[in-house]
Amino acid sequence: MHISVIGAGGMLGAKLIARLRKEGKLAGKAISAITRYDAVIPPPPPASTFPINTFVGDLSAPGEAEKLIASKPDVIFHLAAIVSGEAEKDFEKGYRINLDATRILFEIIRKSGGGYKPKVVFTSSIAVFGAPFPEAIGDEFFTTPLTSYGTQKAIDELLLNDYSRRGFFDGVALRMPTVCVRPGKPNLAASGFFSNIIREPLSGKPANLPVNDDVRHWHVSPRGAIQFLVQAAEIDTAKLGARRTLTLPGLSCTVAEQIEALRKVAGNDVVKLISREPDETVARIVSGWPRNFDPQRALSLGFKAEKSFEDIIRVHMEDELGVR
Amino acid sequence: MHISVIGAGGMLGAKLIARLRKEGKLAGKAISAITRYDAVIPPPPPASTFPINTFVGDLSAPGEAEKLIASKPDVIFHLAAIVSGEAEKDFEKGYRINLDATRILFEIIRKSGGGYKPKVVFTSSIAVFGAPFPEAIGDEFFTTPLTSYGTQKAIDELLLNDYSRRGFFDGVALRMPTVCVRPGKPNLAASGFFSNIIREPLSGKPANLPVNDDVRHWHVSPRGAIQFLVQAAEIDTAKLGARRTLTLPGLSCTVAEQIEALRKVAGNDVVKLISREPDETVARIVSGWPRNFDPQRALSLGFKAEKSFEDIIRVHMEDELGVR
Repeated sequence: MHISVIGAGGMLGAKLIARLRKEGKLAGKAISAITRYDAVIPPPPPASTFPINTFVGDLSAPGEAEKLIASKPDVIFHLAAIVSGEAEKDFEKGYRINLDATRILFEIIRKSGGGYKPKVVFTSSIAVFGAPFPEAIGDEFFTTPLTSYGTQKAIDELLLNDYSRRGFFDGVALRMPTVCVRPGKPNLAASGFFSNIIREPLSGKPANLPVNDDVRHWHVSPRGAIQFLVQAAEIDTAKLGARRTLTLPGLSCTVAEQIEALRKVAGNDVVKLISREPDETVARIVSGWPRNFDPQRALSLGFKAEKSFEDIIRVHMEDELGVR
Repeated sequence: MHISVIGAGGMLGAKLIARLRKEGKLAGKAISAITRYDAVIPPPPPASTFPINTFVGDLSAPGEAEKLIASKPDVIFHLAAIVSGEAEKDFEKGYRINLDATRILFEIIRKSGGGYKPKVVFTSSIAVFGAPFPEAIGDEFFTTPLTSYGTQKAIDELLLNDYSRRGFFDGVALRMPTVCVRPGKPNLAASGFFSNIIREPLSGKPANLPVNDDVRHWHVSPRGAIQFLVQAAEIDTAKLGARRTLTLPGLSCTVAEQIEALRKVAGNDVVKLISREPDETVARIVSGWPRNFDPQRALSLGFKAEKSFEDIIRVHMEDELGVR
């Protein structure tokens, strides 16, 4: 079982590799090698019982996808993307990285021939949905993205479905909830504050809330997101038929509920580190985002998210801060 | 008012130009010129009070879209496509013509600068939907195409929405019902038989029905389709907001009802010209197609289709066979 992870330098990529390394198997098969790919050099691979190879490059550049597919990995996790804020600021870069690179990857797999048909697990996003929408978005609701990022992800989903239907590979696209609490430094994602207001105060640092605290959103912990990726790689795709895109479960809660959970878990002094300086650009982008889902299909397939935001904070404290 | 028609050599393109030539205006403004563009040479332009220019080329080839946009048309009708059967047979050609050429056109408009912001009317298709679906598909139902053609059209819709949202042009995408009765010779579209079984017998020729006669489908006459295009060019897009794709009204009827209408209008001897040799490929493709819609949004915007299949046959007899 040879596994490739595109976007291996990102937060989810690193966590996925750590879990695969620890378990040593996927879908009941021993892992023989992992290939890491990213545009930036990831930290050195951790010690493992199998080789972990690293390629650094831009998947949208000529010859890059060929390099990655030459070793014919059995499972490809494609997690790489330019985040929403950046794709909105830089139109061409967003389309190049979030659409063209994905399509090139799919094309190289299609053209590789010799009966090669890998499993492809692709991270899409709830940003494929745009307001107005119902209180809870069902599995058959239409995609009307209000960002270029959401547009690019929706197009990738369509391509993945068509390439899978035609038998070029065996794909699954996952509409990830916003991953919260994101560890590390703030990134350019407009959704960053959902994590910032928890992570920074827990480390004794200030954080700004740029929107009203009645903003409702849809979350999963990093640990839960990795579990989704592994389950998607192990799923019997015959159960999916021609509909290879899954809206995943998450926890729907308001920013006020996030802050209350933080107060319960970490106390009032920690909560006081949150400032409230509005940012109209962020508020406008977020107002078009979905707040709640009814993901019956993924639930029936066994995907599960956290039940409370306190649980999400505890996962962060356990996995990132070493609190047991 | 300078108008460009991409796919001007096709059936809808030719009929659209004939109507524009006859009326001499669009959206209340006098037409100063029409530019026709297609991959094959259309018949010579009819006499008109304004110039009708013709470009022959492949829109997906370098420099072609630039040539078309250089004259900065005010309205662009983009009707060009490889039909569903051909896009399913030739994967690369389908993506090149139905996706890449459209994206190139959008890109050239975006890059043209100088405040140029044309109206773009794009013909999408009900093939963006794939079974299973409800008895009547509503305006918020998700797109799960079961053909590469439907995938390409769904992607084009997403691009048109994003480019319009970002202000690069003012787009409207129309999900056309199957246009019936198509005049002329049979083409490679899997939907061709819906027209063949009416048009050919009416001209004293045999025609084959490759599916069961309980197959239900969604139709509009060519005259009705042209009316949709003109209305879309004239619509105030502020009414559409960020959702620039419209599922259009049509007539839902079974093949049996089509044949009964033909019997009423043209008699039993004409109906006897229909043979019934099943074609499994066509039957499989058609079984994934939608049968009926509830297009509230387009209806509320004033779009209308025929109310009976007899009306659709009469439009054919009037417009194509000169029967009054």
